[in-house]
Amino acid sequence: MKNPALELVLRSFKEGAADLEEAKKRISALYSTDLGFANIDLRREERTGFPEVVFCEGKSDAQAAAIILETAKNGRPVFATRSRPSIFEAVKKENPLAVYDLEARTLSIGEFVKKEDRAGLVIVACAGTSDINRAKEAFNTAEFFGSNTRLIADIGVAGIHRLFSRMDELREAKVVVAAAGMEGALAGVLAGLLSVPVIALPTSVGYGAAFGGISALLGMLTSCAPGVSVVNIDNGFGAGYQANLINRASFR
Amino acid sequence: MKNPALELVLRSFKEGAADLEEAKKRISALYSTDLGFANIDLRREERTGFPEVVFCEGKSDAQAAAIILETAKNGRPVFATRSRPSIFEAVKKENPLAVYDLEARTLSIGEFVKKEDRAGLVIVACAGTSDINRAKEAFNTAEFFGSNTRLIADIGVAGIHRLFSRMDELREAKVVVAAAGMEGALAGVLAGLLSVPVIALPTSVGYGAAFGGISALLGMLTSCAPGVSVVNIDNGFGAGYQANLINRASFR
Amino acid sequence: MKNPALELVLRSFKEGAADLEEAKKRISALYSTDLGFANIDLRREERTGFPEVVFCEGKSDAQAAAIILETAKNGRPVFATRSRPSIFEAVKKENPLAVYDLEARTLSIGEFVKKEDRAGLVIVACAGTSDINRAKEAFNTAEFFGSNTRLIADIGVAGIHRLFSRMDELREAKVVVAAAGMEGALAGVLAGLLSVPVIALPTSVGYGAAFGGISALLGMLTSCAPGVSVVNIDNGFGAGYQANLINRASFR
Amino acid sequence: MKNPALELVLRSFKEGAADLEEAKKRISALYSTDLGFANIDLRREERTGFPEVVFCEGKSDAQAAAIILETAKNGRPVFATRSRPSIFEAVKKENPLAVYDLEARTLSIGEFVKKEDRAGLVIVACAGTSDINRAKEAFNTAEFFGSNTRLIADIGVAGIHRLFSRMDELREAKVVVAAAGMEGALAGVLAGLLSVPVIALPTSVGYGAAFGGISALLGMLTSCAPGVSVVNIDNGFGAGYQANLINRASFR
Amino acid sequence: MKNPALELVLRSFKEGAADLEEAKKRISALYSTDLGFANIDLRREERTGFPEVVFCEGKSDAQAAAIILETAKNGRPVFATRSRPSIFEAVKKENPLAVYDLEARTLSIGEFVKKEDRAGLVIVACAGTSDINRAKEAFNTAEFFGSNTRLIADIGVAGIHRLFSRMDELREAKVVVAAAGMEGALAGVLAGLLSVPVIALPTSVGYGAAFGGISALLGMLTSCAPGVSVVNIDNGFGAGYQANLINRASFR
Amino acid sequence: MKNPALELVLRSFKEGAADLEEAKKRISALYSTDLGFANIDLRREERTGFPEVVFCEGKSDAQAAAIILETAKNGRPVFATRSRPSIFEAVKKENPLAVYDLEARTLSIGEFVKKEDRAGLVIVACAGTSDINRAKEAFNTAEFFGSNTRLIADIGVAGIHRLFSRMDELREAKVVVAAAGMEGALAGVLAGLLSVPVIALPTSVGYGAAFGGISALLGMLTSCAPGVSVVNIDNGFGAGYQANLINRASFR
Amino acid sequence: MKNPALELVLRSFKEGAADLEEAKKRISALYSTDLGFANIDLRREERTGFPEVVFCEGKSDAQAAAIILETAKNGRPVFATRSRPSIFEAVKKENPLAVYDLEARTLSIGEFVKKEDRAGLVIVACAGTSDINRAKEAFNTAEFFGSNTRLIADIGVAGIHRLFSRMDELREAKVVVAAAGMEGALAGVLAGLLSVPVIALPTSVGYGAAFGGISALLGMLTSCAPGVSVVNIDNGFGAGYQANLINRASFR
Amino acid sequence: MKNPALELVLRSFKEGAADLEEAKKRISALYSTDLGFANIDLRREERTGFPEVVFCEGKSDAQAAAIILETAKNGRPVFATRSRPSIFEAVKKENPLAVYDLEARTLSIGEFVKKEDRAGLVIVACAGTSDINRAKEAFNTAEFFGSNTRLIADIGVAGIHRLFSRMDELREAKVVVAAAGMEGALAGVLAGLLSVPVIALPTSVGYGAAFGGISALLGMLTSCAPGVSVVNIDNGFGAGYQANLINRASFR
Repeated sequence: MKNPALELVLRSFKEGAADLEEAKKRISALYSTDLGFANIDLRREERTGFPEVVFCEGKSDAQAAAIILETAKNGRPVFATRSRPSIFEAVKKENPLAVYDLEARTLSIGEFVKKEDRAGLVIVACAGTSDINRAKEAFNTAEFFGSNTRLIADIGVAGIHRLFSRMDELREAKVVVAAAGMEGALAGVLAGLLSVPVIALPTSVGYGAAFGGISALLGMLTSCAPGVSVVNIDNGFGAGYQANLINRASFR
Repeated sequence: MKNPALELVLRSFKEGAADLEEAKKRISALYSTDLGFANIDLRREERTGFPEVVFCEGKSDAQAAAIILETAKNGRPVFATRSRPSIFEAVKKENPLAVYDLEARTLSIGEFVKKEDRAGLVIVACAGTSDINRAKEAFNTAEFFGSNTRLIADIGVAGIHRLFSRMDELREAKVVVAAAGMEGALAGVLAGLLSVPVIALPTSVGYGAAFGGISALLGMLTSCAPGVSVVNIDNGFGAGYQANLINRASFR
Repeated sequence: MKNPALELVLRSFKEGAADLEEAKKRISALYSTDLGFANIDLRREERTGFPEVVFCEGKSDAQAAAIILETAKNGRPVFATRSRPSIFEAVKKENPLAVYDLEARTLSIGEFVKKEDRAGLVIVACAGTSDINRAKEAFNTAEFFGSNTRLIADIGVAGIHRLFSRMDELREAKVVVAAAGMEGALAGVLAGLLSVPVIALPTSVGYGAAFGGISALLGMLTSCAPGVSVVNIDNGFGAGYQANLINRASFR
Repeated sequence: MKNPALELVLRSFKEGAADLEEAKKRISALYSTDLGFANIDLRREERTGFPEVVFCEGKSDAQAAAIILETAKNGRPVFATRSRPSIFEAVKKENPLAVYDLEARTLSIGEFVKKEDRAGLVIVACAGTSDINRAKEAFNTAEFFGSNTRLIADIGVAGIHRLFSRMDELREAKVVVAAAGMEGALAGVLAGLLSVPVIALPTSVGYGAAFGGISALLGMLTSCAPGVSVVNIDNGFGAGYQANLINRASFR
Repeated sequence: MKNPALELVLRSFKEGAADLEEAKKRISALYSTDLGFANIDLRREERTGFPEVVFCEGKSDAQAAAIILETAKNGRPVFATRSRPSIFEAVKKENPLAVYDLEARTLSIGEFVKKEDRAGLVIVACAGTSDINRAKEAFNTAEFFGSNTRLIADIGVAGIHRLFSRMDELREAKVVVAAAGMEGALAGVLAGLLSVPVIALPTSVGYGAAFGGISALLGMLTSCAPGVSVVNIDNGFGAGYQANLINRASFR
Repeated sequence: MKNPALELVLRSFKEGAADLEEAKKRISALYSTDLGFANIDLRREERTGFPEVVFCEGKSDAQAAAIILETAKNGRPVFATRSRPSIFEAVKKENPLAVYDLEARTLSIGEFVKKEDRAGLVIVACAGTSDINRAKEAFNTAEFFGSNTRLIADIGVAGIHRLFSRMDELREAKVVVAAAGMEGALAGVLAGLLSVPVIALPTSVGYGAAFGGISALLGMLTSCAPGVSVVNIDNGFGAGYQANLINRASFR
Repeated sequence: MKNPALELVLRSFKEGAADLEEAKKRISALYSTDLGFANIDLRREERTGFPEVVFCEGKSDAQAAAIILETAKNGRPVFATRSRPSIFEAVKKENPLAVYDLEARTLSIGEFVKKEDRAGLVIVACAGTSDINRAKEAFNTAEFFGSNTRLIADIGVAGIHRLFSRMDELREAKVVVAAAGMEGALAGVLAGLLSVPVIALPTSVGYGAAFGGISALLGMLTSCAPGVSVVNIDNGFGAGYQANLINRASFR
Repeated sequence: MKNPALELVLRSFKEGAADLEEAKKRISALYSTDLGFANIDLRREERTGFPEVVFCEGKSDAQAAAIILETAKNGRPVFATRSRPSIFEAVKKENPLAVYDLEARTLSIGEFVKKEDRAGLVIVACAGTSDINRAKEAFNTAEFFGSNTRLIADIGVAGIHRLFSRMDELREAKVVVAAAGMEGALAGVLAGLLSVPVIALPTSVGYGAAFGGISALLGMLTSCAPGVSVVNIDNGFGAGYQANLINRASFR
C-alpha cells in the first residue's frame, strides 16, 4: 500500500516537525472532508482503487448536490446513483460537465477511466422490457469505472430461443450481469451456458407473489447452476460495480 | 347429475313410503360411513367422477388401515398417499391385493381404470435426481386414475441441452407435470416451449434460501410464461391428480 | 414439429445457396423482431400454439403501444393485459380495431379463434363483487384464445347456498376458474363438488391478515380437495389462459 | 367484586390491629403461593371465576408435578394441559384422583363444575381425522369448566355434504369450536350457516405451504363470514376455555 | 329450522302444483337477489339470525349504493362497513333514513333491534387514542345488532393504573372488546382480570416492527391468559359482531 | 415511593372524612385527566421519574394539540414526537414557548431538566446522511430529559477509517446511540470498541432487501459483540429516552 | 486510552530499536493469540473494560475447551456461554476452578469482579417458569461481570397482581431484565411502572404463533412504554451483559 | 465455440453419411449419459470451461456413488459436495483415488488443474470458528478448480483489530470470500477496505433472530459498501466456484 501523503506526516512526526496531536489532526484531514451532515471519503480510491459513489436517495437536493460538487473539486470524477432531475439541475448550475441519465437515474461528472482506456467487456442482459432501467444503471456504472459495456434486452426464458440466438455475443463477455424480475430464471440459465461469472440482479418487476423482487432474489440465490452471485433487489449500481471489478481483474 | 339411489329415496318420500325423518336418514346413509374418528366419503366418485383418496399423514397406523380397508370393501379400488411401510403391513394382512411404492409412499388396491382403458399421456418431468420421489407420487397418481404416464428425470435448467434433447418426447404429452426444487425454473421454461398445460410441482429440495420449497413455489407462481398452474410444495399427489383430470378431458 | 420456413433455410444451407453465417442470420430473423427495448417473439404461436401476449405493466405508453402495433401487423391478432386507457388511445389511433375493457384492463385486436369456432365452456366463478375485475381478466383471456366463457359472480362460501343454487350450471363447464380473496375457500369447495379441474385465482381483496392475497394463495395451495391448481395473486390472465388450454384439450 | 378475606385485612388495618407493613404482607399472601420457580395464582378463581390452569410444556416433570399437587391441595380441582405421561405418573403417586387423556394431553384432578351442574352445549367440530387430538383438548377443557360437550369429527369442506348432514345437530350448540388445518375453511363455512359464535382453532396439520398452521390461521382470520374469532395454532385449551366462557354466559 | 316459505314450495311440488324445474326456480328466488355483479343473501337472517352486512371496500360507489338500497327495500334494516362519504351521499339521496359515522366508516339504515330491546353490555376498550376509529366500528356494530355498548378509551398498559381505575366499570360487561396496536398487550391483561370473554381486536397502529398490526395480532394470539380470541387486524366489525353474538347469548 | 397527595386521601379515609366511594374518586382524579378521546397520564413522572411523552402519529391535529396543551398546564414541560407543522401551529397559538424541529419532528415546551443541570454525555452516531433525521429525534429526546448530547454523522462501516478517527471522542460518552439502516453493522462495530452500552437504532434507510429496516434490525439483534440492545425501527425517541435513562444512572 | 505496551513498541520504533516490520509484528502479538481455528481477543478487556466471552455453540468440545483454557492462562477469569457438560468435563480436567451451571449453560473460571466489589443491583424478572433457564443465563452473566443480582420468577401479566406485590423490590434495582416468551408483555408493563432502564429478553417459550420467540420479540420492540431496549431471542447472556454495563455506570 | 465432435456429426449429415434421425441421436449421446435416475452432463466442461459437480444431498448413497464413479471414468476429475462418509466408502472401494474432507464434506477424484498450474490467490476469510466448515467447502472448491487458496479464520468485526492485523495479507488476494453468520458484517467491512471483489457467504451460524442465516444474508445483500455479491446461505461451494471463476479471469 503506497501512501506518500501519510508517509510525509509520519516522517514529520518521527523527525519532530509535528507533535502527536498535530500528526493525528493532519492524518485525519487526509481522509475525509466533513460537511457537517456528511463525511466525504476522499481516500476511498487509494484504499479500494475506486472513488466514492454518491447515493442520492434519502438526501435532500441541497445535501446531494453539495456532496457531489465537493467531491468533484479539482477535477475529480464523480458518479452518483438514484439521482433526481432536481439534483441534476442544482449540480449543473455549478458544474456544467454534469451528465444525467433519466432512466438509470445516474449522474456523473468526468470519466474515471478515459474512453480509450476501457477494456474487456461487460454484458448486461435483461429478461424483459420492464427490467431495462435497472439494467441501464448497471450498464452506466460498469462503463464509468472502466469497462466496455453492451446491453442485450428482452431475452427472458419464456421464449428461450431469443436467448440462444444471442449466445455467440454473450460468449464475448468477461462477465455477464443478468437482470430479471418475477422468477429470475435468466441468471441460472445463463450460468449453465457460459464460462464466465454471472452477477444476478433481481428486479422488483412483477406483481402478487413476486413480492417486490423477493421471488427473483430467492430464485437467483438458489440457482442450481454454479457461477452465480447475487446483489440486492434493484441494485443496478452494485451489479455494475462488481461486474467492472471482475472485468478489470483481467487487465491488472 | 345422475343419481338413481337418491331418486329412489325421493320417490319413496313423494309416494309416502317414507316419511320426512326416514327420508333424511336414508339419504345421509348413502353418502358416508362413519368410523367414529373418520367419515368416509363413499359417494365422492359419483359427485366428482373419482373415488376419495386416503391421506395417511397424521393418522395412526390403525386409523389409516381401517379407513383403507373399509373403503376397499366390495372391490372398490383405493388409493392412499403419504403411507408408511407399517400401514402397508397392516393392510396387506387383510387385503393381499394391496400394492406399496416405498419411494412415492403410495399404497393402492385394485385399479380405478383398467390398464387397457388408460388413455392420453401425462409426462412427469423432474429437474434433479433429488426430486424423483415426489415425481413418482405424481406418476403413480395419474396412472391409478387412468392416464398413460411417463417419467423424464434430471433435465433441470442448469444444463438446458438435456431438456432440449427430450423435446420431441415432451411434445407427445397432453399435460406435463414439472417437479423442481431450488429456483423451480423448469416449469416456466417448459411452458414457454410447449402447447399443453404445465402443472408445476415445487419440491422442498435445496437448502438455505430454498426455504423448504418456498423459493421454487414463488418462482413457479411468478413464471413469466403462461400455461403454468401450481400445487402445494411436495404435493405430488395433487399434481398427478390434476394432470389426470386434464388428460382425461380429451376423452370425455 | 412442422416448420416450413426453417426447413427452407436448412435446405438452402445444405444445397449451398446459403453459407453458415447467412443461414444463422435468416433463422434468427424468423423468430423475433427486435425493437431495441423489446424482442417480439413472433413464432411463439408455432412453438406453443398460441401467440405472445403483451404485458403492459412497467412499460411506458410508447413502448407498450409500439409492441402491440408491431405484433398486430399483417392482421395478426394481439392480446394485451394490464393495459391503461392511455395505451389504448395510442393504439386506437393507429389501429381502429383495438378493443379495450376498463375493468379487466385487457386490450385486444382481432380474434385468435373466430367466435363461431369457440368450443367447450370455461366458467369463471368469483367469491365476491370485489373479485370481479380479476375474474373478467380471466374471462376475456379464455374467450380470446378460443373458449366459450361464462361468469358467475358473488357465490362465496359465507352464504354457501348461493353456490349450491348454481351447481347445475357449474357442472356444464369443462374447467372452472375460482377467483377469491380473503381465505380463498371457494376453490376447495368447488373442487370437492365438481369432476373437472379447478384453476384457483387468489385475489388481493381483503385487508389486515389477508396480506394482499397471501392468505387466499396459501388457502388455495393447501386445499384438502384434489383437483385444484393455483396461479399467481391477481393473475386473471394466467388463470384464463390455463383454463383455455385445458378446455381446448377436449377438442384437439 | 366480593372479597371477604381482603376486607378482613383492611378492617384490621383501619382498626389498628395491623400496621401498614403487616397489612401489606397479609394481602400478598392471600394472592399467591411462591414455590421459588413458580408463583401459583391461588385467587385467580375469585378474580376471573375460574381457577388457574397449569401449562406443562417447558417445565420439568418435577416442576409440573409440584405445581399441580400444590394447587390441588384442600380438594381444589386442577386442570393441566400439554402434560406428559411421566408427569401423570408423578402426580398419580401422590394424588390418586388424577386423570390423564393421552390424545388430548390433558390431566385433571376433580371437577370444577359437578357433572350434574353442567349446562348448555359446546360442539367441537373438526375437519379431518388428523385434527382430533387438538379437538379433544378443547373438548376436555370445556367439559372441565362446566359445559356439556360433543365432538363431530371429519366434516371438512372437501366433502361438504358430510357437514350438511350434521347441521341439525350443530344448530343445538350455544357455541361451536371449529378445528381445522390446511386452508381452515371449516370455520367460515360454519359461521355462514349458524347463528352462534364460532371459535376457530387452526391446527398444524398439513405440509408445505400449510406452514405449520399459518395458512389455516390466516384463512380463519380473514374469513368473509362474521361470527368467527380465532385462537393460537393448536391451542385446543384456549378454544375450549373461550367456548365455555361463552356457553356459560347463557346461565349467569 | 323453521322456514314457512320453503315449506310452501315443497308442498306445492308434492301436490303437483309446481313441477321440479318450477320448484327449483322458486326456491332459488327465496334465497338471493342477483344484481349481476352481486348476489344479495336475503335469507341470511333466517339462517344465522342476523341480516347480511355490506362490505364497501373494493366496490364502486354505484355498486355499493345499489346493494345497500336493494337490501333496505321493504323496511329491512341495513348495516354497511368501510363505507365512504360518497357512498353515503348516493344512498342518502334515495333513502333519507341512512346514517353515517365518518370515524367508524359505518353506514346504517334503520335498527335491527329497537333501542328499547337492546340488552346486556358490550364494552369496547382501546389502548390509545389512535385506536379509536376501529373501536368505534366495533361499537356501532354491536349496537346495531342489539347490544348496549360503552367505549373506554386510552387505557393501554404503558400506564396501567388508568386501566385499574376502570375495573369496576369493566366488570359490568358481558363481553369486552380490546382494541390495541403495537404489542397488543391490553387483551391479555384484561383477560387475566375479568371473568368474561375478551375479543381481541389488533389494530394497524404503530410503525417499524409493528408491521401494520402483525405484532399486535401475534401478541394477542399468544397471550398467556385464557379467555381471549382474536379477529383480523383492524376488523372492528368482526369484533363487534362476535361480541354481540356472545352478549345476546345471555338472553336467548 | 413518596406520594403525599395519596397519603392525604388515605388519611381522610381512615379518619372518616371521606367514605369509600369518595376516596376512590379522589384517588382516580390524582392520576389522569380524561379528555374523552385521551386519558393523560399526569402522574407518570412520579411513577417513573419522567413525564409522559405525546406520540402524535395517528392523532388528528386537534387531538394532538389538545393533549399537548393540557399536559403543559401549570408550567409542566412537555415533549411530543412524530409531530407535524400543523400541530405546531395549533400549539404555538396557545403557548408561545413551543419549539419545533422539522427534521426530528419533535415539539417541546419548556425544559424537563434545566440546561445547567444536564450531566453526562450521550453520543448519537449515525452511519449515513440519510439516517440523520432519526438520529436527531434521539438527540433531542436525550437532551430534553437531561443529558448533554453530541451528534457524530456519517461514520458507517463502508469507510471504517472515518469511524476510527472519531474514537477518542466516542470514548467520552456514557452511552452511545448507533443509528444505521441497510445492514446496520455500525452498532456491533462500536460495541466491539467501546466500554459503554450501545443502544442500536435501526432505520428504514435502504431499498430492496433492506425491507424497510428489517435487515438493520436483524443485524443489530444478532450482533456478535455484547453490549448492544435494540429499539424499534426508526424509533429515535425510544433510543434517546433509553440512552438518557442510562446516562442519568451515573448521577443518581 | 492508556496502553503502555503499545507505547513501548511505538517508542522502540521511534528510537530505532525496532524497524517498521518488527514493530508491526510486535503490535499484532499484543492483541490476539492465534490457535489456528480461533483468534483469541486478549486485549478486549483493555479496549472495552471486559474480557472476551467464549460462545460454545457450533464449536467442537475440543475447540471450546482449548479456547477456554488458553484464555484462562495466568489466572485470567473466563466466562463461557451455551456450554455443554462434555465441554465442562474437558475443561475441569485441566483447570479445577471451572464452575458449570446446567440450567443456564454457563461455565466460568474465577471472578472478574471479586464478590465483595460487586455493586448496584440487577433484577432479572421472568414471566413464567419456562423462561427460567434464559433468565439464569442473564443472572450469571451480570454477576460474573460485577453486579449484585436477584431473580424474580413467574410474574407474568396473566396474573398481574403477582407483579404488583413485588413492586417495592423491583424499585430497588438499577436496571431490570424482563424475560418473557409468548406475547412478551412483561417488559412494557414493567417499563411503565419503573424509573430505570428495562432490558427486554424475548424467549422462545410458546407454540404456534409464538414462532420461536418472534411474537415476544416484536411485542417488546413495539412496546408503547419508553425505557425498553431489546436483545436477541434467548440471548440471556446479552441481556445480562448489557444490564451489568448499565448498572456499573453508576459506580464509575 | 470449438466443438469438433459436433462438427463431425454435422458434416456426416451434410454429406449424407447420417440421416436426420441418426444425426439427432448421435448429437444427443455427445451431451449426456443417462443413468435412469440421473442424466450426467458430460459436456458441461466444453460449454462452461468446468466439469459438472455432484451435489450429494437428497441422493441415496448408491445414487451418489454411481454418478461420481460414472463421471470419473476415463480419468475425468470429479468434485462432489455435501458428501457423507458412507458415500466416500462406496466410492473409495471402486476408485482408490477418491479423497474426502469431513469438515467441508467435499469428495474429489483427481485434479481439474494440476497443482503446479494453479494461479492467482483466493482468500477465504471467516468471521468465527463456527463458520469454518463452510469456509473450507469454499476453500476446497476454489483449489480443485485451479486457484491458490488461503484461509484466514476468526476475524469477525466484534474485535475488528484482528481483521486489521491481517490487511496486508488480504491485499494479496485477487478475490476474497467472506464467510459469516449472525449479522454478516464482515463482507461489507472487507469490501470497504479492499480493491477486489468480495464474494459474501452467509452461514447459518447463530440463534434466535439469526433465523438460520437470513440475517447474515440480508446484511450482506444490503451492505453499504460496493464490491459485494452474495451466494446462498451455507453455499460454500458456490462461493468458492465463483471466486475461482473471477480469479482465473486474470489468467485467460
